[in-house]
Amino acid sequence: MDKHSFEARREKLRPLLQAQGIEALLVSLDANRYYLSGFELQDHQVDESAGCLVIRKNGRDLLCTDARYQTAAARLWAEEDIFIYGADPAAQIAALLKKEIPAGGLIGFEAKAMSVAFYKEFSRELALKPSDGLVEGLRIIKDEEEIKRLEKAALLNHNLMSWLPGELGVGKTERELAWNIERFFREGGASSLSFPSIVAVGPNAALPHAVPGNAAIREETCVLVDVGCRLDDYCSDQTRTFWVGAKPSPEFLRSMDAVRTAQEKAIACIRPGVPAKKIYETAWNHFDSLNLAAAFTHSLGHGVGLQTHEAPSLGPRSCAILESGMVVTVEPGLYFPEWGGIRWEYMVLVTEEGCRIL
Amino acid sequence: MDKHSFEARREKLRPLLQAQGIEALLVSLDANRYYLSGFELQDHQVDESAGCLVIRKNGRDLLCTDARYQTAAARLWAEEDIFIYGADPAAQIAALLKKEIPAGGLIGFEAKAMSVAFYKEFSRELALKPSDGLVEGLRIIKDEEEIKRLEKAALLNHNLMSWLPGELGVGKTERELAWNIERFFREGGASSLSFPSIVAVGPNAALPHAVPGNAAIREETCVLVDVGCRLDDYCSDQTRTFWVGAKPSPEFLRSMDAVRTAQEKAIACIRPGVPAKKIYETAWNHFDSLNLAAAFTHSLGHGVGLQTHEAPSLGPRSCAILESGMVVTVEPGLYFPEWGGIRWEYMVLVTEEGCRIL
Repeated sequence: MDKHSFEARREKLRPLLQAQGIEALLVSLDANRYYLSGFELQDHQVDESAGCLVIRKNGRDLLCTDARYQTAAARLWAEEDIFIYGADPAAQIAALLKKEIPAGGLIGFEAKAMSVAFYKEFSRELALKPSDGLVEGLRIIKDEEEIKRLEKAALLNHNLMSWLPGELGVGKTERELAWNIERFFREGGASSLSFPSIVAVGPNAALPHAVPGNAAIREETCVLVDVGCRLDDYCSDQTRTFWVGAKPSPEFLRSMDAVRTAQEKAIACIRPGVPAKKIYETAWNHFDSLNLAAAFTHSLGHGVGLQTHEAPSLGPRSCAILESGMVVTVEPGLYFPEWGGIRWEYMVLVTEEGCRIL
Repeated sequence: MDKHSFEARREKLRPLLQAQGIEALLVSLDANRYYLSGFELQDHQVDESAGCLVIRKNGRDLLCTDARYQTAAARLWAEEDIFIYGADPAAQIAALLKKEIPAGGLIGFEAKAMSVAFYKEFSRELALKPSDGLVEGLRIIKDEEEIKRLEKAALLNHNLMSWLPGELGVGKTERELAWNIERFFREGGASSLSFPSIVAVGPNAALPHAVPGNAAIREETCVLVDVGCRLDDYCSDQTRTFWVGAKPSPEFLRSMDAVRTAQEKAIACIRPGVPAKKIYETAWNHFDSLNLAAAFTHSLGHGVGLQTHEAPSLGPRSCAILESGMVVTVEPGLYFPEWGGIRWEYMVLVTEEGCRIL
């Protein structure tokens, strides 16, 4: 991605500011900031930001950061448009905008990504308007280059899942397995995991967000693996559930069959124009027909791109309508605290004709 | 850390709520939540939370989360005090508090860790008071067990830095080196990095937050390495700057000498009762005496514990007074875009007698 691609995205954003009646948008969310500038993809502590952008209706966008990032910013941005703040970013950026934006001009901000403390300082003398979702609205449709990168990340995940069964030796702990997986990703070119790996043995598989611990693989047990990597900035996300041993339990087989069939039915409905919640309902209805809906405790899936979890949601309350270029996970799961759980996950690209599994 | 240690911390917090005149505190910041409960140490996307706590002046604390974490929460918390929210956490937690808290009772919240969007829903029918820093005020003094863990993490970092010079081969890229370092940490027992590793060759060392890339080590060049790991939940953070080759440049030697002397002078001042900014000023004054203060572009250090960056700051505007049991980094640095930079970092425990390098 070169400077011009980021610039082109900012140009696509400008008419949206116009439509919102705002003179400028303060972009705080890390992935949105990166999408528009190439500057710092991830804030690694939730209470620490590398900076923000001011995107203006009529050009001359600003990159605001602190002195530690000044040289890095200068590699991406015109020096005269970099603003270095000190100890009080909110008040200093507000003062800058008061000077730069025509008096009374509305300034949009991301209410989901701005803290109450920042807002208190920032809002003192500015006319503000919550304007969430504008950048996410662009990010939701992936361009050719983004799809290529998502495919590359998904391919490394497929390779991992082909290699993994040979690693599922009796006695190996969740933690050891998680580390083997991370090594595979990193040695395959990933810059990091896209989220903390879930490796869950036996009853731990009933925790949709299990943390790998000292539980070890035993003969005749299930192992749930939900892992992804970041490759060329983009995230993969895949779940598989394995049985270790020659005699999978009847509950395992029955649940696996239910999950895979729900998934197949859901994917068969994916095409442009379909409401996202219909896809969820298709999976839910299948589970319900088997009296298993109570064990399906989470959403069916989510968008994936620069963030592991992004729009659109495939949940029961999603308002999204599917469009060509969206990439979503489809990951039905069933959980049983007594013995474990099953989840199976694909990344799916919505295409003009329907969809394609990445 | 067992359930009782977390409970004891909540008991220490209660008198602070009383003093603030609040009936309860909504704890949103991930590290604060974990410190008081053992529930989910890190939110891995800045826009996604695993949940929050409601700590009450008179006991019966609540853990609020979503269905994905229900089983995990039940391993830590009394089931009747776990509140599972759905699609609108802010409104649902507000309704719960309206029922649970005596009418008109003030509820404290962490304004730095709550988004404007969450606040908008949450504040509709509650009397709220920004109450930042209460949990951080406990976390700033490390107990015996925490110091033991920080020491263990620091020790792994020391071992890494002893091993590292043998890895600095000509031709090796920043990215390769960063991965070797991560492997060393993980194979040494760390659960993850404590922050994205900085490995910077030559002029890249002038970027205090450099991202490891394809720059390769050449003969006669400087390499700055700022890395840390998370071990038993606690973070280490160490920087060293190396010269590869037999003929370190005069600028390198002069800057190294300035940095190490500034650091030595700063550490010599650390003891209970000293204002944190004095420690910064001691380093700054040394650089200033050499006409180098302009190249010292960041704070001198920061607290370290469950988060890599936490209170107290050793910056020019810090209001903290050092106390026994604080752990801070001391990391003076000098940066020169033409050739690179120098930073050297210790983790230092403030003791009754003065201080001790971990």
